[in-house]
Amino acid sequence: MAESAAALSASSDELVQRAPTSSLADQYRSVRAFSHRLCEPLSPEDYVVQSMPDASPTKWHLAHTTWFFETLVLLESSPDYKPFSSDFQYLFNSYYNSLGAQFPRPQRGMLSRPTVDEVHAYRAHVNAAMAEVFESGRMEEDAALSSVIEIGLHHEQQHQELLLTDLKHMLAQNPTYPVYREDVQTERQLCVPLHWQRWEEGLYSIGSDGDSFMYDNEGPRHRHFQQAFEISNRLIVAGEFIAFMRDGGYKRPELWLSEGWARVQEEAWTHPLYWAEQDGHWKQFTLSGLRDVNPIEPVCHISYFEADAFARWFGARLPTESEWETVAAVEPIHGNFVESDRLHPAAAEGVNGDMRQLYGDVWEWTQSAYSAYPGYQPVPGPLGEYNGKFMCGQFVLRGGSCATSQSHIRLTYRNFFPPTARWQFSGVRLARDV
Amino acid sequence: MAESAAALSASSDELVQRAPTSSLADQYRSVRAFSHRLCEPLSPEDYVVQSMPDASPTKWHLAHTTWFFETLVLLESSPDYKPFSSDFQYLFNSYYNSLGAQFPRPQRGMLSRPTVDEVHAYRAHVNAAMAEVFESGRMEEDAALSSVIEIGLHHEQQHQELLLTDLKHMLAQNPTYPVYREDVQTERQLCVPLHWQRWEEGLYSIGSDGDSFMYDNEGPRHRHFQQAFEISNRLIVAGEFIAFMRDGGYKRPELWLSEGWARVQEEAWTHPLYWAEQDGHWKQFTLSGLRDVNPIEPVCHISYFEADAFARWFGARLPTESEWETVAAVEPIHGNFVESDRLHPAAAEGVNGDMRQLYGDVWEWTQSAYSAYPGYQPVPGPLGEYNGKFMCGQFVLRGGSCATSQSHIRLTYRNFFPPTARWQFSGVRLARDV
Amino acid sequence: MAESAAALSASSDELVQRAPTSSLADQYRSVRAFSHRLCEPLSPEDYVVQSMPDASPTKWHLAHTTWFFETLVLLESSPDYKPFSSDFQYLFNSYYNSLGAQFPRPQRGMLSRPTVDEVHAYRAHVNAAMAEVFESGRMEEDAALSSVIEIGLHHEQQHQELLLTDLKHMLAQNPTYPVYREDVQTERQLCVPLHWQRWEEGLYSIGSDGDSFMYDNEGPRHRHFQQAFEISNRLIVAGEFIAFMRDGGYKRPELWLSEGWARVQEEAWTHPLYWAEQDGHWKQFTLSGLRDVNPIEPVCHISYFEADAFARWFGARLPTESEWETVAAVEPIHGNFVESDRLHPAAAEGVNGDMRQLYGDVWEWTQSAYSAYPGYQPVPGPLGEYNGKFMCGQFVLRGGSCATSQSHIRLTYRNFFPPTARWQFSGVRLARDV
Amino acid sequence: MAESAAALSASSDELVQRAPTSSLADQYRSVRAFSHRLCEPLSPEDYVVQSMPDASPTKWHLAHTTWFFETLVLLESSPDYKPFSSDFQYLFNSYYNSLGAQFPRPQRGMLSRPTVDEVHAYRAHVNAAMAEVFESGRMEEDAALSSVIEIGLHHEQQHQELLLTDLKHMLAQNPTYPVYREDVQTERQLCVPLHWQRWEEGLYSIGSDGDSFMYDNEGPRHRHFQQAFEISNRLIVAGEFIAFMRDGGYKRPELWLSEGWARVQEEAWTHPLYWAEQDGHWKQFTLSGLRDVNPIEPVCHISYFEADAFARWFGARLPTESEWETVAAVEPIHGNFVESDRLHPAAAEGVNGDMRQLYGDVWEWTQSAYSAYPGYQPVPGPLGEYNGKFMCGQFVLRGGSCATSQSHIRLTYRNFFPPTARWQFSGVRLARDV
Repeated sequence: MAESAAALSASSDELVQRAPTSSLADQYRSVRAFSHRLCEPLSPEDYVVQSMPDASPTKWHLAHTTWFFETLVLLESSPDYKPFSSDFQYLFNSYYNSLGAQFPRPQRGMLSRPTVDEVHAYRAHVNAAMAEVFESGRMEEDAALSSVIEIGLHHEQQHQELLLTDLKHMLAQNPTYPVYREDVQTERQLCVPLHWQRWEEGLYSIGSDGDSFMYDNEGPRHRHFQQAFEISNRLIVAGEFIAFMRDGGYKRPELWLSEGWARVQEEAWTHPLYWAEQDGHWKQFTLSGLRDVNPIEPVCHISYFEADAFARWFGARLPTESEWETVAAVEPIHGNFVESDRLHPAAAEGVNGDMRQLYGDVWEWTQSAYSAYPGYQPVPGPLGEYNGKFMCGQFVLRGGSCATSQSHIRLTYRNFFPPTARWQFSGVRLARDV
Repeated sequence: MAESAAALSASSDELVQRAPTSSLADQYRSVRAFSHRLCEPLSPEDYVVQSMPDASPTKWHLAHTTWFFETLVLLESSPDYKPFSSDFQYLFNSYYNSLGAQFPRPQRGMLSRPTVDEVHAYRAHVNAAMAEVFESGRMEEDAALSSVIEIGLHHEQQHQELLLTDLKHMLAQNPTYPVYREDVQTERQLCVPLHWQRWEEGLYSIGSDGDSFMYDNEGPRHRHFQQAFEISNRLIVAGEFIAFMRDGGYKRPELWLSEGWARVQEEAWTHPLYWAEQDGHWKQFTLSGLRDVNPIEPVCHISYFEADAFARWFGARLPTESEWETVAAVEPIHGNFVESDRLHPAAAEGVNGDMRQLYGDVWEWTQSAYSAYPGYQPVPGPLGEYNGKFMCGQFVLRGGSCATSQSHIRLTYRNFFPPTARWQFSGVRLARDV
Repeated sequence: MAESAAALSASSDELVQRAPTSSLADQYRSVRAFSHRLCEPLSPEDYVVQSMPDASPTKWHLAHTTWFFETLVLLESSPDYKPFSSDFQYLFNSYYNSLGAQFPRPQRGMLSRPTVDEVHAYRAHVNAAMAEVFESGRMEEDAALSSVIEIGLHHEQQHQELLLTDLKHMLAQNPTYPVYREDVQTERQLCVPLHWQRWEEGLYSIGSDGDSFMYDNEGPRHRHFQQAFEISNRLIVAGEFIAFMRDGGYKRPELWLSEGWARVQEEAWTHPLYWAEQDGHWKQFTLSGLRDVNPIEPVCHISYFEADAFARWFGARLPTESEWETVAAVEPIHGNFVESDRLHPAAAEGVNGDMRQLYGDVWEWTQSAYSAYPGYQPVPGPLGEYNGKFMCGQFVLRGGSCATSQSHIRLTYRNFFPPTARWQFSGVRLARDV
Repeated sequence: MAESAAALSASSDELVQRAPTSSLADQYRSVRAFSHRLCEPLSPEDYVVQSMPDASPTKWHLAHTTWFFETLVLLESSPDYKPFSSDFQYLFNSYYNSLGAQFPRPQRGMLSRPTVDEVHAYRAHVNAAMAEVFESGRMEEDAALSSVIEIGLHHEQQHQELLLTDLKHMLAQNPTYPVYREDVQTERQLCVPLHWQRWEEGLYSIGSDGDSFMYDNEGPRHRHFQQAFEISNRLIVAGEFIAFMRDGGYKRPELWLSEGWARVQEEAWTHPLYWAEQDGHWKQFTLSGLRDVNPIEPVCHISYFEADAFARWFGARLPTESEWETVAAVEPIHGNFVESDRLHPAAAEGVNGDMRQLYGDVWEWTQSAYSAYPGYQPVPGPLGEYNGKFMCGQFVLRGGSCATSQSHIRLTYRNFFPPTARWQFSGVRLARDV
């Protein structure tokens, strides 16, 4: 699962240079406050429900991200720190076997206690202790400490995105279509036409060299021989996906991977997750309730299997992650992130053939199975459990989504989910051989 | 499932006689208020969780019992009544196919909305409309209306008991053993010895003749030829059950029904539900948290299979429901009910051989499969779905428990649960052939 | 499950009187030979497959019935007997915990070995040793020995019926509709009209007094107060069942028990097992392949749930087992048994209102849950596992079927299956209150 | 699943050159005869059982490979050909959606018919028709026809291996450990020591260029930038795997992928498939029955998860498939194949550091997820369903096993199975970064 954060492979010196103590304290306050802001529209009841084993209750996300700082920072480096509750080491450990037993993941929704107020008190307790750490100046002598805190912040940003996607999934179970937040969408009228951008074969380098923050799975940077390819200038939109559906997309086994076709049958998939047909019109459940599907917005909440079948139907294929990174390496990081407060992908306006939407809007499925880069080594210690142990059965997604923080994303970022996953903001960009 | 309430077969005249309108209004206020009182110790988070498909969230119980009055009283008989929410007809229908589709039972814990406050507003809305009904004097002309209201109150009392047992099951999932309410147990020191009371063969009548309130499954009253038998004067206690356990009770297939033995293996049963061994001592989870098992208290939270295996080990058997009713017919209805506020079975003090604990403490498993009495007819209309359709695969329990309202129980009352059910306050009394 | 045989409660003297040694030897040869005759149409491949956990491969039935004699007769009473194979004690024990561990029931179809030839050799080996027992004259001094052999023969007859029903179920999985044996059905043209026979209330005795062979669950004979009732003179026929289907029988929840309705949904039942609609006509798979449903033949292969729903739709109910036995007590035992070699129920011809088809054709579901008669005691030893341990979750069927041996059935015989079971030759007779 | 065969991308001219008609006829007779030879030790009962959904009955393999020639050769190109049975198109289609519906895979063991004799008659019928094709000379004008026949032969060879592995799995379910064929193992005394062979970084080409027979997934041949690495000279042996087990290998989560660790818990893995400890000694079930684990033989029947965990414990990793192919490209194809008739991996004798056991003995798990090579295109038509649609959730294995035909294997051959699969002859070779 993609709750993983991972670990620095950068040296201490580099860390100190790029993350001065004062700014890390600011980042800490800012990231932690954002978790609270995301919860403002919620009632206590909304924090409790776990709608499927892959998702977690809001309350759990708030507590688990706090547990991270308590366990890996405070209990490690602050001898006087008193844990908020002895139970929480067990209740809020996600999957770190090296840190002890874990309360079973599928049971997270069984816990009415601790209450939301107690979880907030837990957060305040840890924040106070962290403030002391920042004030103590200890971090200036202890680059490893800064490093773990920085990971903890990226970890919390990941969980902020999961908090939103898990919340959306939970609200979608409710036949009354509850609204998390009133709609702030601005209607766009046009969508840029689909173009193909060509790239020539050659030796390219991909992956992170550790000069800036990275998870361990992003390195080492390494050479890769790339065949020539073409890539589409924008994401596939809902209207194009509807054309696939109308052409029998969900009924034609020849378009699907074998496992994908089995899933289509078992779960009777006929459209993206959260879509529903009403009186001949396609609606979709969003964090602002049920609204019309806008045909020029990127299609969203589709599995790898659906992305792959669409590409095959289109006469194209999904890009590999090295193709994606090669293309994205020359583009700036901007887009429709969580900061835009749309919480929904937006149409790509404009007319020229420039590369669009590489970042934000939706995570882009790649055809690359999530695996180790040549020479990959997990970091030692508990943080080595972040990434490496999930290198099986999952596919890489790139570029972040409308639920991702802009400060969290980067060129070399590798997200990963099983090919059946649909509850993330996931969509599709096409590539093809030349 | 035992969410059933059932329906009157009594004639209108009888009803008017025994439930004058004024007192029904009082009963309504009293019963409805008791539901609220039960929730006083809860946080909003506690109302949401569904810990297994057989159990329901507290919130759901509060809303469903209200839905009953809205649907079967107000929408039927008050032309000006405006429903609180059009969604609730679907969300809070339990299993009445004749009243439309139902939100799937195993999904009840997926609903964070309506919130607890909204559910309380729903209750207030319906209470206000019901107050108008009571004030209107319409009930005096409409015995059927009174009858449905009376059923609605018994229905809510049933759900009050389920609210407690479901809540206990939910809290028990939490490894921190949350406390619903501080312990008010008084320690008792002695338990009355086990005696056998003998009954001779003969034609006995059992079942209700409808002179007072009854569910339809309690009638018709009918003759039954009873062989001679003996019955124990009190419930089996925890200490006796521990002796069974120590004698390999959970490891000896010859003591078990075939299905029971399969269940013992599948779920690795080695003790009653909610028990745990700590440092060589037996503890049990109660609504007051974890406390020692008291060997002189009735054993509780055992399935039919465990009750039956214990009886076989003891060289006895479970009573039939007609045996139980024959014995109980000459005893007064008093005991450890929810009104005692213990919420836990209590030891039977004393020394003489009188019949003890027939009412209250724990529901007593009988060896009788739940089935129709000769001449049974379900009442017409939706209330006919209360009882008759569950006459398959369940066993009858008699006498009420420490979570039952005293005003809810009666001699002819037939509770029923599947033989695997353990989360009710259920225990065992023995019988034997002579 | 209904593989049970049970045990004698009759005294030794009675046994010797009614089953002289010489005739028991003849019976043995005759019953054992009939098992072989049933297998004559089979290829070795047909003996191997287990089509569901409730069914067993033909090979297993042949071996298990032999294991019975080896284990309970030869190993008990013939000191010089050498077992055919040490593995078979484990492989072919069905459910006798007191006789050691059992190869898991759902895995019986995993065993290609022993081969059919080896199983036949096993049968011959045991038959030879049994012949020595018969010749030794030991049985004349040892009534218990005769008794166990007699049970073993009834046990084998039960398995002969199961062999046929399991084989039918297995062949039905094959889309090519294999034929076990060419059709010997004679078309009948008319069916006797439905009449109701009235019985008055009174004290009746039912159950076996042990004067002739019985399983332990048939006793003790005991008094029962019976309310007045009416019972139909014949079985319900396919044409009547089709009327139920056409009237939405499988789509109307109000006709079904709650568990039955759940099953209808889960398994999408729309007709009896083995039926299929082809070009607007109802066909059914039989042991002679696919043939037309004959509307005047008894409807067959329906579950308790379907029988019960049909009865409710008809405005009647299922008989209780005491009603059935009261009625059958005055009727002779003759009917369409396995000896008629039809292997399919036959229409009741004639015009008068006499009671028809009580025996043979199809097992008749009663509304009685399978439970202990008053004073019931299982026999001591392994044979005590035959019947008593299944007294939970099953319903009683009466009268035998077209796959039952006539010499196996008797007035007090209690067959039992779960309410979901459809693969037996099971049908419905109606009763009603008066 | 690895029932796939795939298709030629080579041009017709090349095909004609390398597979002259006459020799193809010989190959056909030889390959088809070998299927029969493999079945010689079997009884009819052995052909029927399906021991898990992933495995198929022997009978099914014999019929399905025949169906291939009937469907893709005879029905396509022989206008006068009369199918043996109209049912077989449905019964013996494996997964070709483009060729119509398929009998459900998990139900293959439900079919007692057609009998083994009928399947043999089916094979004879198709062989006779194929002989006519070969004699007709049509193949000389129709290179596509030759091509499909050649694929059909490779397809049958794949199924010969599956026939053996599925048979082994089936026999292993039987607690009597049936022997397929008496042991022909020769004991070896010594095993070559483990050495590491170093390879330098560079641009290497891998994959097939289509000059000789290939499945479509082996191409196109393409350049790959390879980092420097080391690879072990031989397979890991049972003794080394026992050391892993003794060091707590199956109990230490830090050694496992997250999904692998979950599987270890769920299925309580503590040793390779088919191993059992008896009196402190490790035994293993083989096609010759139960025998001692020989510590110098390659460890076999391990999943990807176990291979990966072993490698991590050893301080190494699994090779990638490009590393494997780079190394194997300079080695001859010889080894312990099915032709050696051992049906079990054999120890690598000798002392020098040469590369050993790349071919035969056991399939070698690589760390490469099974995916498309750059520029991969499935062949058009039904044969396009062979390989491409399985490119998800599986890992590549290389080199063939002791159950593979030597004439079936080649340098570029890509076998693939899910990471949980254990019933193939699969083992492990190590690599490491330098």
